[in-house]
Amino acid sequence: MSTELRYYYDLMSQPCRALYIFLEMTKIPYRRCPIDLRKGEHLTDEFRAINRFPKVPCIVADGDFHLAESVAIIQFLAREYPEIPDHWYPRNSRTRARIDEYMAWQQHNTRSLCAAYFMYVWLRPRMLGTTVRPERAEQIKDEMERCLDFIEREYLGRGSKFIVGDEISVADLLAACEIEQPRMAGYDPCAGRPNLTAWMGRVREVTSPFYEQAHVVVNKIAAATNAALNKL
Amino acid sequence: MSTELRYYYDLMSQPCRALYIFLEMTKIPYRRCPIDLRKGEHLTDEFRAINRFPKVPCIVADGDFHLAESVAIIQFLAREYPEIPDHWYPRNSRTRARIDEYMAWQQHNTRSLCAAYFMYVWLRPRMLGTTVRPERAEQIKDEMERCLDFIEREYLGRGSKFIVGDEISVADLLAACEIEQPRMAGYDPCAGRPNLTAWMGRVREVTSPFYEQAHVVVNKIAAATNAALNKL
Repeated sequence: MSTELRYYYDLMSQPCRALYIFLEMTKIPYRRCPIDLRKGEHLTDEFRAINRFPKVPCIVADGDFHLAESVAIIQFLAREYPEIPDHWYPRNSRTRARIDEYMAWQQHNTRSLCAAYFMYVWLRPRMLGTTVRPERAEQIKDEMERCLDFIEREYLGRGSKFIVGDEISVADLLAACEIEQPRMAGYDPCAGRPNLTAWMGRVREVTSPFYEQAHVVVNKIAAATNAALNKL
Repeated sequence: MSTELRYYYDLMSQPCRALYIFLEMTKIPYRRCPIDLRKGEHLTDEFRAINRFPKVPCIVADGDFHLAESVAIIQFLAREYPEIPDHWYPRNSRTRARIDEYMAWQQHNTRSLCAAYFMYVWLRPRMLGTTVRPERAEQIKDEMERCLDFIEREYLGRGSKFIVGDEISVADLLAACEIEQPRMAGYDPCAGRPNLTAWMGRVREVTSPFYEQAHVVVNKIAAATNAALNKL
């Protein structure tokens, strides 16, 4: 068991929010080390000494073990804190394999596709002054929607309450936090997807109040975007 | 422990080669189920019943447990066959975390960037008749080279013999098989990278003759591409 854990994060980042909710829900003791991506705090020499990659989330355990990548961090914490409730990352070999399968699959699906839409439509125009080409936005949206429809149908359309089985796991935290991201660009991932809508509600309910805490800024930006779109 | 394991693969796929070498090296008993991607065998209804995603690699354990994603498969097999040598996926929590970190990191780095070059320059023109735009090829090459330079410097430039520590692990199999891929498009990943060159040699040596077996077609295509380039 790690005796001291520092967590570096920015709640604008999807996996950072998932890990924040995970740490709060499991009551793993940790020290909050916020990093402001918009101020470029992850690009300083000081931060590069913490994480060579350099990005968030990352952790430092016991003062000397530096680890990046949300999936690897979750797997490490599950080993180091075996007392956390089993449902987060079950020991049952097949259930765990199904969660690992989702965590690998999401990398080129939920994670990259929802982020791509948010970045192209919302972030890059604001940070880099780029123009949004409607046909390119539509193409990126199509790819994201194919992924969301797959989740609606394959992961949530076969009677299970959560991504893997009927109990919440780390797969749900990672999935929900990614799916929240395009809301900031004015896209409603729940529209026309009843299974996803019900599941998002369950994830929010089970992880309250930490889910809301993690999404304060996301919700604020999503509301502002929707207000601006409604004026058009 | 699984009593019966079926492995679906095509050695043109990088993670399929890594898993093939892993299965052969660890002597995990399995049945070979080759799937020819070029013939579209992964797109048949029969194969979709085996893997909903539908892609290779995937496994079926004990006749009823279907699992995709190379990383999840490796983690599952390490649990199901605890007798395999520890160095492949060490139980030591920190060492395992470092391997998990690489396996997550590679998804948007070694895996996607080396594949992107191979697909843009070699595969898509042959499969889809697309044209290679030199400036786009150069851009994709730059991204791949930044990744290879990072591996040369950060993973292999700090005195360790393998990606994580001095013993070979699943991280090396995944990394080496990805880095072989652009050779088919005429790119030599070893040129100007002495650490990578020495490491590739070690991986090949330790995993002989399975590494060569896995790369028969890759080597044939790479030789043909180089012969064609030399004629230009």
